[in-house]
Amino acid sequence: MYYKRYSRKVNYYETDKMAIVHHTNYIRMFEEARLDMMDQVGFPYPKVEEAGIIIPVVDAYARYHKPLKYGDEFEVEAKLVKFNGVKIEYDYKLYIKGTGELSAEGHTCHCFLVDDKPVNLKRTFPEMYEYFRDAVKRK
Amino acid sequence: MYYKRYSRKVNYYETDKMAIVHHTNYIRMFEEARLDMMDQVGFPYPKVEEAGIIIPVVDAYARYHKPLKYGDEFEVEAKLVKFNGVKIEYDYKLYIKGTGELSAEGHTCHCFLVDDKPVNLKRTFPEMYEYFRDAVKRK
Amino acid sequence: MYYKRYSRKVNYYETDKMAIVHHTNYIRMFEEARLDMMDQVGFPYPKVEEAGIIIPVVDAYARYHKPLKYGDEFEVEAKLVKFNGVKIEYDYKLYIKGTGELSAEGHTCHCFLVDDKPVNLKRTFPEMYEYFRDAVKRK
Amino acid sequence: MYYKRYSRKVNYYETDKMAIVHHTNYIRMFEEARLDMMDQVGFPYPKVEEAGIIIPVVDAYARYHKPLKYGDEFEVEAKLVKFNGVKIEYDYKLYIKGTGELSAEGHTCHCFLVDDKPVNLKRTFPEMYEYFRDAVKRK
Repeated sequence: MYYKRYSRKVNYYETDKMAIVHHTNYIRMFEEARLDMMDQVGFPYPKVEEAGIIIPVVDAYARYHKPLKYGDEFEVEAKLVKFNGVKIEYDYKLYIKGTGELSAEGHTCHCFLVDDKPVNLKRTFPEMYEYFRDAVKRK
Repeated sequence: MYYKRYSRKVNYYETDKMAIVHHTNYIRMFEEARLDMMDQVGFPYPKVEEAGIIIPVVDAYARYHKPLKYGDEFEVEAKLVKFNGVKIEYDYKLYIKGTGELSAEGHTCHCFLVDDKPVNLKRTFPEMYEYFRDAVKRK
Repeated sequence: MYYKRYSRKVNYYETDKMAIVHHTNYIRMFEEARLDMMDQVGFPYPKVEEAGIIIPVVDAYARYHKPLKYGDEFEVEAKLVKFNGVKIEYDYKLYIKGTGELSAEGHTCHCFLVDDKPVNLKRTFPEMYEYFRDAVKRK
Repeated sequence: MYYKRYSRKVNYYETDKMAIVHHTNYIRMFEEARLDMMDQVGFPYPKVEEAGIIIPVVDAYARYHKPLKYGDEFEVEAKLVKFNGVKIEYDYKLYIKGTGELSAEGHTCHCFLVDDKPVNLKRTFPEMYEYFRDAVKRK
């Protein structure tokens, strides 16, 4: 299974006075890549929310290697690494385009909520459950 | 009627690579000041939203005089300048503390929505209507 | 002269609890479109900054017509409307893709600074001066 | 040694369409608390930058327990937990005021750069070195 890496240019307002992208913005880029993957695999997040399910972040981690600057273009490789119906985990690698240097990497863990209560996707959204279960096997 | 000016320090993440606060963040500071004024006058915005009313922005303007930098503390004077039950308008002046220099000034206009439809506050929230009507007279 | 409209999807983190894009983010989208236009016409902003010139915002205005939501794709038409070597002004129209509805429109004015002092581009960057002068004529 | 906890209200623009504070904003709050601590202990970050030193983030982690909402006030307890002159590490606990509930906790690691090169604070800023060394002992 192949996902197209998420890619775009750095925005000026994402930089800070160190003249590099502010560290919290890489985690926003991870979100962009994760939701882009949901689009690609046929479960766009707006549809998920319409079905009454939200997928909040349980924890988030980022490690910074080489700063992104304004003028850079980057791409993010997001990988589903764990899934058990109750939680889902992703790894991210963010590369600077052109040089291919690793700029940052990270990890997020998410749960599934319906009416603010944790649910097992197996019962609440079996189609998506099966997709994630198979996707994590294939990795 | 006297409102306490809204005041705080600039956050590092509000700066951009020009080493000044990004221009959109002043408009966020206007929002902070406006909502702080709502708190002060006894209509905290969470209560307004609980009553089913939202007050979205119709237009926003900012003029930049002297850039805010990290390390600066600022204060915002927000003034209710127009109100007719259907729309409400505010003027803002943002000063650098210490020197008292005018850093930015601006304006926002808002309407009142219930279930995504414009309403006259006179009918939907008379208590708030009277407050705003009297406040705009007093200015 | 034809510029390709700037276009992308709304990011989740750009929404607020009204479930629409926060009003300040449209002005960030205007910036994205303006800088994308600089790329397209051969004066990428990183090169401009390397030449020692910065182009800060003098004022910014946005009028909101139809809210952008998560799941929407938008495009921005940026137009250079005034230029005299000392100041440059742009108009923006932001459309929702698919329906073509006007979501927001706006305006920004900028000046040119070298070492924190206003300059006339005619002397400091004649090549860019001529480009802007001709572009504003063509509009 | 006692530091006053950093405290403020949630801003409206910090929420997203889940009607809670976007997960990346907690990490911005950690930054606010960390820099506030620098102010309190007599090494305000603007002075540090003026001395030619920057302290970028090496990695950042946040774990989310109970979402912050608009209307909440929070306080952050930042703790210096490791320091060796080359790296400095902080732990954070972010509490909802009133209830005292733990909303989020996290960790950041930073290095010291002069002219983009890692330095040992012992040589480049001995006064700050001694302060951090003693502070981490006292914890």
